[in-house]
Amino acid sequence: MAGERKAARTKRGERQLIESILQRVGARAAAARTLAVGIGDDCAVVRPRQGEELVVTTDMSLENVHFRRDWHPPESVGHRCLTRGLSDLAAMGARPEAAFLSLAVPAELTGRWLERFLDGLFALADRVGVPLAGGDTADSHGLVLADIVLLGSVPKGRALLRSGAQAGDIVYVTGTLGGAAAELAALRRDPGAFRRRGAAPHPHLYPEPRLEVGKRLLKRGFATAAIDLSDGLSTDLAHICERSHLAAVIDTESVPIAAGATLDQALHGGEDYELLFTARPGVMIPAKIAGTPVCPIGKMIKRAPRPSSQALVRVLSPEGRQTPLAPKGWEHFRPRRQSGSGSR
Amino acid sequence: MAGERKAARTKRGERQLIESILQRVGARAAAARTLAVGIGDDCAVVRPRQGEELVVTTDMSLENVHFRRDWHPPESVGHRCLTRGLSDLAAMGARPEAAFLSLAVPAELTGRWLERFLDGLFALADRVGVPLAGGDTADSHGLVLADIVLLGSVPKGRALLRSGAQAGDIVYVTGTLGGAAAELAALRRDPGAFRRRGAAPHPHLYPEPRLEVGKRLLKRGFATAAIDLSDGLSTDLAHICERSHLAAVIDTESVPIAAGATLDQALHGGEDYELLFTARPGVMIPAKIAGTPVCPIGKMIKRAPRPSSQALVRVLSPEGRQTPLAPKGWEHFRPRRQSGSGSR
Repeated sequence: MAGERKAARTKRGERQLIESILQRVGARAAAARTLAVGIGDDCAVVRPRQGEELVVTTDMSLENVHFRRDWHPPESVGHRCLTRGLSDLAAMGARPEAAFLSLAVPAELTGRWLERFLDGLFALADRVGVPLAGGDTADSHGLVLADIVLLGSVPKGRALLRSGAQAGDIVYVTGTLGGAAAELAALRRDPGAFRRRGAAPHPHLYPEPRLEVGKRLLKRGFATAAIDLSDGLSTDLAHICERSHLAAVIDTESVPIAAGATLDQALHGGEDYELLFTARPGVMIPAKIAGTPVCPIGKMIKRAPRPSSQALVRVLSPEGRQTPLAPKGWEHFRPRRQSGSGSR
Repeated sequence: MAGERKAARTKRGERQLIESILQRVGARAAAARTLAVGIGDDCAVVRPRQGEELVVTTDMSLENVHFRRDWHPPESVGHRCLTRGLSDLAAMGARPEAAFLSLAVPAELTGRWLERFLDGLFALADRVGVPLAGGDTADSHGLVLADIVLLGSVPKGRALLRSGAQAGDIVYVTGTLGGAAAELAALRRDPGAFRRRGAAPHPHLYPEPRLEVGKRLLKRGFATAAIDLSDGLSTDLAHICERSHLAAVIDTESVPIAAGATLDQALHGGEDYELLFTARPGVMIPAKIAGTPVCPIGKMIKRAPRPSSQALVRVLSPEGRQTPLAPKGWEHFRPRRQSGSGSR
C-alpha cells in the first residue's frame, strides 16, 4: 500500500484510510469460507471448493456520477457501493465469497465521513457474510472514488446467465419497481430530509441485494436466465433479449409498482436491485421466494430476424395494444451544469 | 453498462469508451484458459482447473497520483496500469488468467488518448496472454481513473507468500534496481523528451512484470517468500520481514544498480517491478532465471523481540558497518502545489 514517508506527512491522509479499513477487517476474515489468504500479501488467495467455480464483478461508485455528497449520507454511499457488486452476484445465483475495495478519498474526508462510509459498507458485508480480502487506497485530489470487486461461488456450470431464456418463458420480477427512482426524485427535491436514515424503507439509499432469491433460483433450477435491475426494467430486459436472441412483451398492469412510484419509474427507473428472471411456462414459481414476493410480468417471444434494439421489449397496454418500450436507462447524480453521460 | 439514452447524448462519451474496449476484446477472449464466461453478463465466470486456486489483486492508476498526463504517453499509462496487477501475480508465482478494468475517462479523452491507452494495455495483455473479462466504465468529470483487477492461478497451496522466509535465508533480486526512479527523475526534468517511446529501455514508462521468473520460482520450489518491488527495496523488504517475523541485512555492494541510477534510487526508488525473494542458503539459485539475471543481496536474520519498523532492514556498508535502512517509499506524480500523500 502506501509509502510510509509520504503518508506520515498528512494528518488524515492515506495512512488513516488504510488503518480505518484494517481495523474493521480483523476477526471478520477468519469466518471466510474460501479465502485462504486475505489482506497483507501481494494478492489474496481464493480456494474454491470442490465442484464450484467463481464469478467476478467490478463496479465503480464515483462522486457526482453515482452519488452526490450533498444528497447521500456516507453510510448510504458505502451500502450502495457494496450493493452494486452483491446484486451482480445475486443475478448469477452466487454465494458471496470475497470483496475487494479500491478507494480514493481526499485527505479531509478520512475522518468522520470515511468512518460512516465504512459503517454502511461493513454493516451490509457482515450481514451477508462477505470478508474484505484486499483492495487499494489513495489520497484523491478532490472527489471520492470507489471501485468494488466481488467474488462469488456457484456450482460448476450452473451460474444463472442472461443468455438462457427460451421463447415462451415467463418473465418474473422480485419485489416492487420504481421505488429507488421515486426516492431519488424526492431526494432531488429535498436532500436535507435524507441526511439521516429513518425507519421507513429507503429503496434508493439502502437497496437490498437479492442474494437469497438468487441462490434459491439456482438451487431449485427455476430460472432459465436472470439479471439484476440496475439500469431499469426496460434496459435490463433488453439485455436478456439480446443475449438470448429473443424479444419480450410486458403486461403493464402486472408490473409491481412501488408505493409512491409511477409506472414510468417502474419501467425505466434503475437501481431497484431487484432480480428479473425467466422460467419455463410449465414451472410452478412460488409467490414468494426466500420471503420476497415474485411476480410474473410478461413473456419471452421469438423476434424478427433483424430487430432494432428499440423494439426488443414491447408493452401490452390495458387496452390490449402492443407498443415498443425503448430502453431508457437511468439518470445519474452529476452536477447539472456538467456535460457527459453517467454510467452504472 | 451505461444507459443507452444518456450515452447517445455525448459524441465521444461512455458509449465510445465501451465500444473502444469491446472492439479489442473480441477474439482474444476465446484463447482464455479458465474464463468460462467473459464480458456481457452480470459477472464473468472463472473456472479454475483441477488442483488450482486463484489469486486476486486490485490496483488503482489515478491521474496526478500515479501518472501525469503531461509526463506519461497514453501507451505508458495503459502499460503501467496492467503491469501493476501483473507484477503482483508474478510475486505469487501465478499464471495470469483474467483482467478486469474499471475505467473513468473525461469525454474529451475518449478519442485518440483512449485508443493509445488501450494500445499500451492490450499490447502487454496480448503478450502475456491475459484476456479482458469485464470491468466498468464511466464518464469522469475531469481526471482519468483506472482500477485494474487481475486473477491468476497457482497450484493449490503453493502461492509464494511474503510470510515464508526463515532466518538464514538468502535475499535475492531480479534485474537491476533504481532504473525506474532514474527515468522518472529525467522525466521530471524534461517531460517532452519522453513523448514517444524510443528504442532505449524505459524502466519507468514500460516496466516488465517478471511473470516467467515468478512461475519458475514456484515450479522449482526455489523461493521461501516473494514480493514485487513496487514501493522500493527498503519498503518491500520490510514487508517480508514483517510478515515473516524476521529482520534482514543488505550488502550495499551487492545491490545491482541500474545504469544511470544511484544507490539511493536502487534502495528506495519504487516501481522497478522486479522480484525480491528469499531462498534457503543451501539451495543453488541460477544466475539467470527465465533469462533474467538474479542476484543475492543479503540475508534474513532473527530479530529483536519488539523491533521498530525503522530497524527491520539494515545495510552493511563496504566498511562493514551496519546501519538501519528506514523504508522510504516512493514519490508520486501529483502536481506540486497539491497536498496529500500519494499511494501505490
